[in-house]
Amino acid sequence: MNFPKSVTIVEVGPRDGFQSEPLFVATDKKVELIERLSEAGVKRIEITSFVSPEAVPQLSDSELVAARLPKKPGTSYSALTPNLRGLERAIRAGMADIALFVSASETHNQKNVRMSIEESLRAFRQMARKALNGGLRMRGYVATAFGCEYEGRVLPKQVERIVTEYIAMGISEVSLGDTTGMANPLAVREMIRSLKPVLGQTALALHFHDTRGTGIANVLAAIEEGAQIFDCSIGGLGGCPASRTSSGNIATEDLVGMLHEMGIDTGIDLDALIECARYAARITGRQLPGRLPNAGRINWNGTAPDL
Amino acid sequence: MNFPKSVTIVEVGPRDGFQSEPLFVATDKKVELIERLSEAGVKRIEITSFVSPEAVPQLSDSELVAARLPKKPGTSYSALTPNLRGLERAIRAGMADIALFVSASETHNQKNVRMSIEESLRAFRQMARKALNGGLRMRGYVATAFGCEYEGRVLPKQVERIVTEYIAMGISEVSLGDTTGMANPLAVREMIRSLKPVLGQTALALHFHDTRGTGIANVLAAIEEGAQIFDCSIGGLGGCPASRTSSGNIATEDLVGMLHEMGIDTGIDLDALIECARYAARITGRQLPGRLPNAGRINWNGTAPDL
Repeated sequence: MNFPKSVTIVEVGPRDGFQSEPLFVATDKKVELIERLSEAGVKRIEITSFVSPEAVPQLSDSELVAARLPKKPGTSYSALTPNLRGLERAIRAGMADIALFVSASETHNQKNVRMSIEESLRAFRQMARKALNGGLRMRGYVATAFGCEYEGRVLPKQVERIVTEYIAMGISEVSLGDTTGMANPLAVREMIRSLKPVLGQTALALHFHDTRGTGIANVLAAIEEGAQIFDCSIGGLGGCPASRTSSGNIATEDLVGMLHEMGIDTGIDLDALIECARYAARITGRQLPGRLPNAGRINWNGTAPDL
Repeated sequence: MNFPKSVTIVEVGPRDGFQSEPLFVATDKKVELIERLSEAGVKRIEITSFVSPEAVPQLSDSELVAARLPKKPGTSYSALTPNLRGLERAIRAGMADIALFVSASETHNQKNVRMSIEESLRAFRQMARKALNGGLRMRGYVATAFGCEYEGRVLPKQVERIVTEYIAMGISEVSLGDTTGMANPLAVREMIRSLKPVLGQTALALHFHDTRGTGIANVLAAIEEGAQIFDCSIGGLGGCPASRTSSGNIATEDLVGMLHEMGIDTGIDLDALIECARYAARITGRQLPGRLPNAGRINWNGTAPDL
């Protein structure tokens, strides 16, 4: 039971969540959610994606979000940059942290960005030089790292290859995405073990979707394997409610609630975080999958409201 | 990563699930669900509780369920027996497996069965003699084993004391209930370690509710500590949708799906189990929290339906 003393939470709801919400959320509400999250003590927030507004209309306000957001000192605000144009927009918008994104599955990458993995990596090399020249920090996502709904199994070698390329480009952190919820605790442990020699000093984040209800168990397995950075989305935002294979990330508040109960610090105020989740439900107009906004945090002093 | 080769699933949806569903489910539908579950390969099913029909009208058809159910050889059908009268009813109904139920929290036991823990245990001693004389097997539940919504912390000593009493009565299995979702993986590990010397050869089951989204992570922690028997409910049945602190058990299909992905056998046909979960949703008339009926099981051959 060698649990770490602390874990870093990367809130991706404003990007990964909102990009797949059925409705556009007003810019001011997005900004307010991000502000509330940073006030609650979340130190890393992915606020948007500088993607084509035609491709993802839900995030067509990237520049506005970045411009209106009061930046809290000590908090890192990052953005996804799918291509060179997106990177240039992110730089103009003053972003200091950006993220690259490629799938480990050829088919998924084709369907997602209409490029082969090789074409994505080629574009990233050019983007990485520009980003590093501008002093930006880079994260590299590997989507469908644990399996692909189109191709089925994804070879660990394919993940390793992308991670190796990312490291050569100068990224500071890899995030392994379980895009459609195909990971399990054993696969997570094996993946982390096999990647350790490849990663060296590069930070490793895990990005689980809760498509099949095992997202938090996957986090537990990853923690037991030494991982300490986890992506999640407030309320469990994301995932098209109509889709069979898409689902939100694990809910930030549920993960933080569990970690705190285990004595693992996140630096986050859980009560304020639960309020963020309730706010996220209000501005998306739907009940979100996170449990704590409904169940309430654990009260170890007891309550006996009706005794 | 010393995972067991197999794990035993105890389906409690027909009892723990239906008892807290807002609506009464027709007897024939209950019977059909139980039949489908045993056809899917679930080897242990808690089918009802011989409780007062006034106290739990949802289970007022216990005798009918027991009488109409075609018993599949090799499958164990059990029932909860809250008191001597319930035990006598269960014996008349031909049950071979019964379960006793007491809370580790004094307040919770009072609110649940209007008796002190001491009064419950005294009644159980008499019941146990009768059950053993009749050749019945007994399971002993310890509810609120990981915390109580009324009292807060529950002392491990209190759980140990009840387990010791149960063993003295001749039970063959203890089931530790996390009645309101207050357990976490660290607490689960500590509980199992502290109980091992007390348990000796008595079997240990874990019974997690998914109130705060950590139920399956708690199972993972328990497996890593050597536990191999888990209670769950099909579809995640149970829990009053209107209550803040009540919630269903972990969903059988989601747990079985994860275990199979980890190479841990349950003897259950996952596809048939998912169909059971869909049937459970139809007969309760509500969307249940289990994920696999919506997400579908993982297809490792890939699908690419729209390529």
